[in-house]
This record gives sequence, C-alpha cells and structure tokens, in this order.
Amino acid sequence: MKFYDLAGSPNTRRVRIFMAEKNLDIPAVMVDMMKGENRTAKFLETKNSLGLLPVLELDDGSCIAESVAICRYLELQHPEPPLFGRDAREQAQVEMWNRRMEHEILLPAMHAFVHSHKMWDGRMEQIPAWADACRDKIRERYDWLDKELAGRDFVATADYTVADITAQCAVLLAKGVCDVRIADEQVNLAAWWERVATRPTARA
Amino acid sequence: MKFYDLAGSPNTRRVRIFMAEKNLDIPAVMVDMMKGENRTAKFLETKNSLGLLPVLELDDGSCIAESVAICRYLELQHPEPPLFGRDAREQAQVEMWNRRMEHEILLPAMHAFVHSHKMWDGRMEQIPAWADACRDKIRERYDWLDKELAGRDFVATADYTVADITAQCAVLLAKGVCDVRIADEQVNLAAWWERVATRPTARA
Repeated sequence: MKFYDLAGSPNTRRVRIFMAEKNLDIPAVMVDMMKGENRTAKFLETKNSLGLLPVLELDDGSCIAESVAICRYLELQHPEPPLFGRDAREQAQVEMWNRRMEHEILLPAMHAFVHSHKMWDGRMEQIPAWADACRDKIRERYDWLDKELAGRDFVATADYTVADITAQCAVLLAKGVCDVRIADEQVNLAAWWERVATRPTARA
Repeated sequence: MKFYDLAGSPNTRRVRIFMAEKNLDIPAVMVDMMKGENRTAKFLETKNSLGLLPVLELDDGSCIAESVAICRYLELQHPEPPLFGRDAREQAQVEMWNRRMEHEILLPAMHAFVHSHKMWDGRMEQIPAWADACRDKIRERYDWLDKELAGRDFVATADYTVADITAQCAVLLAKGVCDVRIADEQVNLAAWWERVATRPTARA
C-alpha cells in the first residue's frame, strides 16, 4: 500500500492520526500541490480524477480517495482499537458525530480558509463575505459543542474515535488559518482539546 | 422507532428512499419547519440539539441525527439488500462515492438554494456570489460525473447503493431549486438518471 499525502492539509492529517492510533506504518508519497503534482494527467487518471488528497493506493494498484473512506477501509482491515464504534448503536453515534464535526466545523473552516487566505488569492474567486459567515458559524458551533461536551471526555462515545480526529483537525485549521480560537469561557471544549492535543498521535 | 421527517428536504428524502429500498416501514412524524417545530426547546433537548432533520428515535427514546448515520444504523440492523457495499473494498468504494456525491454536488446545491431562493430571504444573510459559485461547481461536476459513469450502471459499484441515493437527491434539488439541469451532451449522466429515477422507490 502507498499513502499519497499532502503537507498542511486537515484531510491528510485525519488519516495520519488514524493510522498512528492503529499503529500502522504505510509508506507515504508526498505530493506537491504548489507544483501541480495533483493535477497531472497521470495523477488524475490513475489516482484521483478530482485531483484531491489523500489517496490510498492498494497493492493491486487500485485507489481509494476521500479521507473517511480510507479510514473506514483501514478500520475493516485492522479493527483494533475500534475508531468507528463497536455495536450498531455506537457506530451510528460515531457516524453522526463525525458528520457533525465535518459539517459544522471542518467544512466552514476549509471555506473560511480558501475564501480569505492570501495563499488562495488569484487561484480562485474568493468571496470574503462567505469567509466571514463561515467564521461566525464556527464560533457559534464552538458554543454548542462546549455545552454538548459537559461531563464527557470525547465527542461521540466514551472512547476516542474518528469523530475526535475530525474535530481536532478542524479546531487546528480554524486556529491556524481562520483566526478562530476556543474562547476562555468554553471550558468543556478547552478541556477536550487539551485531552486530544496531548495524545502521542496528535502530531502525526 | 419513529422517523422525524421534513417535506421537501433532500436529506430526509435520502433516508426515505433508503428505507423503501430495504422495505422498512417506520412510522413518520412530520415536522413543520415553517412553524419552528424543529426549534422548540423540547425538540432541541430531546431530538437534535442542532434543530436539523431527519432524526430517528429508537425504542429506548434515544435519537440518531444525520441522514447517513440513520442509514448506517438501518443497514446494520437490516443488512439485505446491502446499500453500503459488501466486502471492505466495496464498502470503501461506496464511502468514497457517497462523499463525492455529497461534497461535489449535494452540498453545493444546498448552498445555492439557501443563498439564492426567496424562501430563505430575510431568514439568513444570503450571499448571491456564493450561490453562483456553487451553481458553477455543480455544472463542472456534472461534466466530471458524466465521464466517470461511462460504461457503468451505478455510481459506486455494479449495484445501486447509498451513493446513488445521495446523487439522485442532489440532482433533484439542483433541478428543482437551483435551475441546474443535466445537459443534453451529458449522455452517461442522463442514462444513469433515467435508471435511478424510474426505480419504484424514487418517489419515497
């Protein structure tokens, strides 16, 4: 297997943390987006026709794109420790929370980033009003998540799961490039962040 | 079990089609969003703290939100016919394609809808430039999907899956409220649409 990786991307980081939690060591190929290596005819034809990363190449040469699809494949091949929940109830709970973390925090952070950061200036049509709306949404959702986390250690279940991984990559992105930080009064969210950011896998 | 449903929503429709494909008959409770029934203190406290639909209430009173989390729970309880793929490879393929259909078509259609339609005027800050960018993205992704569907009956595997359900709800939304239609030259996409839209479950 080969893992096509991209530095600084929240989505490739999600898979790197996931692999580290599973203790998997899959050879990585760094792709240079700035040089357009993800847009070459060969990459589009054989790895991912959307030009997005990450991509997992299996030993038969076929490829799986989309970070959560890669994580799910690895979960099915290496079930321990379970990061998508154990029984049906837990699996549904993890799916629900992973999606909430994506739709309510990670995607708004991605949009705020590409629609306001100078890195994307001139490479696409940036809409500053949309970036602002996304920043406001993240702040509002941090308030919501702070209340949800009262009395809980992790986002979806009693254990650390893929929903925590998504949330921690989202919080990192929001802080790093969107200037949205956990507020002092969001004590449950801050305690959760301390809990996940100090795991040995957090820097994967 | 009880299914909290909303008329006209692509996300509740995804679950209704999924249940119909599984031949499941779960009692539905229609929620009136225009009357704010999804924002009452009771709904937020006991059904979904985000006020979103659909929601599946289990017999013990606990609730699962997020359409795909509900579908996954139902798949685990009623595995036949499999709509999330069979083996690990297929399950990863379905996850990849379901996410591509969400991120590349359904979400842009949702954004184009709420940021341009008169139904949302005055209920949120609409950003018309963002709605236009989303419409352009859908048109571009239709071209991409048309090429991908060459020689294929369904989106993710040889069988109809949840990725087709997501795609058909997205196409319906794009046509109904975003004025984006499958173009005459997109023959593979048109043939796929004919195939899914004529299934007995399509009007669920």
